[in-house]
Order: sequence, then structure tokens, then C-alpha cells
Amino acid sequence: MTKEIKVFAPASVSNIACGFDTMGFAVDRPGDELVLRRIEEKSIVIKSITGDDGCLTKEVSKNTAGLPIIELFKDFNLPGGVEIELHKKMPLGSGLGSSAASAVAAAFAMNNLFDLNLTNMELLPYAIKGEELASGAIHADNVAPCLFGGFILIRSYDPIDIIELPVPDNLYCSILHLDVKINTKESRKLLPTEVPLNLAIKHWGNTAGLIAGLYKNDIALIGRAIEDFIIEPIRGNFIPNYYKIKQAAYNAGAVGCNISGSGPSVFALSDNAETAKNISRDMENAAGEINIKTCSFVSKVNKVGPKIIYKN
Amino acid sequence: MTKEIKVFAPASVSNIACGFDTMGFAVDRPGDELVLRRIEEKSIVIKSITGDDGCLTKEVSKNTAGLPIIELFKDFNLPGGVEIELHKKMPLGSGLGSSAASAVAAAFAMNNLFDLNLTNMELLPYAIKGEELASGAIHADNVAPCLFGGFILIRSYDPIDIIELPVPDNLYCSILHLDVKINTKESRKLLPTEVPLNLAIKHWGNTAGLIAGLYKNDIALIGRAIEDFIIEPIRGNFIPNYYKIKQAAYNAGAVGCNISGSGPSVFALSDNAETAKNISRDMENAAGEINIKTCSFVSKVNKVGPKIIYKN
Repeated sequence: MTKEIKVFAPASVSNIACGFDTMGFAVDRPGDELVLRRIEEKSIVIKSITGDDGCLTKEVSKNTAGLPIIELFKDFNLPGGVEIELHKKMPLGSGLGSSAASAVAAAFAMNNLFDLNLTNMELLPYAIKGEELASGAIHADNVAPCLFGGFILIRSYDPIDIIELPVPDNLYCSILHLDVKINTKESRKLLPTEVPLNLAIKHWGNTAGLIAGLYKNDIALIGRAIEDFIIEPIRGNFIPNYYKIKQAAYNAGAVGCNISGSGPSVFALSDNAETAKNISRDMENAAGEINIKTCSFVSKVNKVGPKIIYKN
Repeated sequence: MTKEIKVFAPASVSNIACGFDTMGFAVDRPGDELVLRRIEEKSIVIKSITGDDGCLTKEVSKNTAGLPIIELFKDFNLPGGVEIELHKKMPLGSGLGSSAASAVAAAFAMNNLFDLNLTNMELLPYAIKGEELASGAIHADNVAPCLFGGFILIRSYDPIDIIELPVPDNLYCSILHLDVKINTKESRKLLPTEVPLNLAIKHWGNTAGLIAGLYKNDIALIGRAIEDFIIEPIRGNFIPNYYKIKQAAYNAGAVGCNISGSGPSVFALSDNAETAKNISRDMENAAGEINIKTCSFVSKVNKVGPKIIYKN
């Protein structure tokens, strides 16, 4: 019987410019780590959280990693209890699916620790419940890519319809994080409730183009489709130097660049590792003109989702 | 030297529920026929038009088939002139891309009669100019599928970005036409200028789903994606018995059913010929409760675009 498991769950880029609320993809780096340890006592305890600067609650039912565990214990009538150690390895409130990664890590760890043999589709609702605590609404565009890996389309929420999309092998993602707090709940309130039909049409033309680009392995088309005339004009204003950073990414060879999730992180796609590194460097430089702490990540699109670091 | 050519250009279903203004597909039947005959005199003449009930003008520069011919003569400094015979073989103002078919037939016939060797991308602007006369705006969502065949995505109009999509071999289309005139120009004026963001999101989730369905050869997914919460609630009101017809199509086995173009024609998709015929019959019956002339067509999705009937 497995007594303890440590897992990794990846960060993810949601919205992807033209896929607002319906699309996201996972990246190899950064990601959260979570240790789950069986205990005899019938209780679920968050023993420690690192990397959160004390921001996250250890109250299990209010923690994004805690809630999926509570729900799985309940639904499967599991014996004993668990201790949780959550290691946040990415900035919080960053637009990188930080809460989704913790929720997925928890659900994935539970599935493996207790040999529940649940499919990703069966695990998804548990992870979504956790993520809901953070965002205040049901959104699967970080949770689903984090859990399934790769590019994910959520065609519909009711009923949920998840479509796994192909990912070009040579698709690289450069991410720049700026240390500006953007609260997802608050950020959503600023969005328009109505959008001009002509912009909506451009938006779904691009959504369709992005999907076609993924299937055709056509990175230039993927790049052309990464445009957003609805959300970016609002959220871009909350990211210091955003348009300069974006321009720097394109100048360095990005095929597409936009806001990751609700920001402040910015992602840029390219077709090789060297360009991806140059983009990262030049985005850092463009951001460096202002006095804000930044960090950056370069990785391929993650195709596998969470993984086990060890179990014993 | 070819003296005379007769060509066929197919009808097309645009919008496809979730692809408003960005997508369309061609069908094998119905379609227009056009004869183009060289004459020595330097003039372009519409000699006859059949099947239009006298509705279409013979003034060449104001006719959707005439204008592409004028423009090609001008741009390529062609010798002599031509006589045109246009045989409308589908209802006008039907939402089946009638004007697009005439414009494409003309451009395609010119390309072959004068050995211009233009690619479809090069012919497209000429056909679009013709179609613009009828719709009052530049829309390629009938012209492009009619010219290229198959399912077409117009990701962007400026610059134009045409993406050819795969078509499942067993995808059948049943079309019901009701003899109610809907003017495309007038019909557009009734559309909302703003749409609720939540509905726009559902719409682009479906657009993305439809593209994925075409690539995955997943007809059930194609069907699930054929939903429209923005345009259908307005245009559906102008089609007598529309919702009964739609229900009849689903009851008969359609995977998706919606308004073709701006209507009044209704299209339904299915995965085999027998179901397609049943759908057609049941849609006719549902429409038959009212006293309006109808006609219906069953065919596969057309993958080739226009074709030469004869040349000599």
C-alpha cells in the first residue's frame, strides 16, 4: 500500500488570446508540487505550505488543494486521513493557473495514493471544485489543460465537453511574470458584459483558426490567430509596459504573444528553443525599464499533465 | 483555342450556426450553370438568364456573374468579348449562396476559357466583387466554399485568410428551401450590433468545436457544435415553422440543424444517405403544415468546387 506520494502539476496558459474562457494549454515549467501522506486518524490536515508568502489558508475546506481531497474522501468513503504539504513553485495570482495546479495536484495525488483508478474526466469535477474557490466561478480553462496536458478546448460547460487538441512538437512557450497582483475575481468584473458583434466575429474566426493551426501543425497560422480585440484592450492596461513587452516578443521572433489568463503574466509562442530564450530575455528587458520584479520561464507545451515525483 | 465553355458552380451553406460570417461549406446539389462564349466584338453581353423569374438584371456591371468578367477582362487586357448565358438552378435569396454561385461560375469559366491559370486564391477577389453586388458587403463565406469546395474558414478578411478544412467522407446535407423571400441586405440590419459576452463565449467554444470535429472526423462533435445563440433567435422568426422543421430534422436523425446563410433555407447534417433522405422528407412534412411552396435537396458536402460541364 502506498503511504506517501509526491506529485507535480504544471502551470497553464488559459484564454490564449482568442480562446477566452474556452481554451488553455499546459507548460512544462513552472508547476506546483504536493506531498500527500496517509495518516491513521480520520482527518485531513494541511501540514505545510511553502512558496506562498503566507497568503494561502491552511483551512482545508477553503484551500484549493484541500477541497478536492475532502470531496474524494467523502464520495469514495476512504479510510483514515491524510496530511498535505503544498509547495507553491509559481507566483500566485499570476495568470498561470496557480490555483488550478494545486487543485489538480491534489486530485491526481489522491487518485494515485488510494488507487482510485479514476479517469481524467472523472477527476476533473474535483479539481474544478478546488479551483472554483479561487476564481469564484466555474472555469476549467486552467484545470483541464493542467490535468490532461496539451491544448484543451472546453467547448461547453453545461454539459461539460472537453476536447483534447494536438500540439506541434516544436511549439515553445516563453512566459514573463511581473510581480503585480491581479485578482481573478476582481479582474472579471471589469470585463464588458456586451461585445460588438463585429469584434465577436473576428474573435471566433481566430478561435477557429487556432484550432485549425494546431491540427495542421501550422505554427504561423497559430500565431496569426493569437489576437484578441475584446479582453486584451482592458486587461492590457493593468500590466505595466504590456504593449512594449509584447512588441519585444514579436521583434524577437514570437509568432504570437498575449496575456496569460487574466494576467499579469504574458506568454509568447515560438517554433524553437533558441528563439524562445531570446523572447524571454527581450521581454525581461522590456519589462526591466520599470521598477517591478519579474521572473520568466521557457518550456515546451506540456503534453502529459501532472506526474508522480515519487511514491512509497 | 476554346470558344465556349459551360460550367457548374455549387450552392453553399454559410454561417453553419456557430461560424457566422466566417465559415461555409459547398454542397453537390443544387448549383448554377453558366455558358461563356467568345465573340469577336469587344463587348460583354448577358445573352440570357433562365430560372430567375425575371428578377436578375442583364446589365453586366450590375450582375453578380457579369462584374467578375468585366474585371478579369480589364486586369488581363483580354481580346474580344464574351456572351454569357446564366442558368439559375436554385432559388434566389434563399440563403444557399445563389449569387456567390453565379459569381464563382463566371470567374471559373473565365479562367478556363482564356487559360488564365489563376489559382483559387487569385480568382477569389473577382468572385467576391460579384457577390458584393448582391449582399452589399464583402462576405466570402459563400464565395470561398463555392470556389474551393469543402468546408472553408475565413479567419480574417483584412488581410484575407482562407483555411481549407477537412470534410468527413460520410457527411450528408439535407436542405429544405421555403419559398419566402429574405433579402440578405435587409436581414443583416436586424442583427444585434452588440452581443452578450457569455453568449459570444459559447459561440466561439462551438466554432472551435466544429473545427475540431472536422479534423477528428467526429460527426457527433460537429453536431454538438452546431448551436447558435446569437443569430438564430432573430432569423429563426422569419422562417415559417422553423423550430418545428428543426425538431423534425433532429427526430429523423440529424446531428445538427440550423439556418443556411440568412435563410430561409434550413440545412441538416447527418452521417448517411438514408438518414439524410428521411430528414429531408420529415422537414418537408413539418413545413407542409403551412401553405408555402418548398423544395429540398439531399447531397454530400461538395469537395471540389465548380466544374466544367463541357468546353469546345
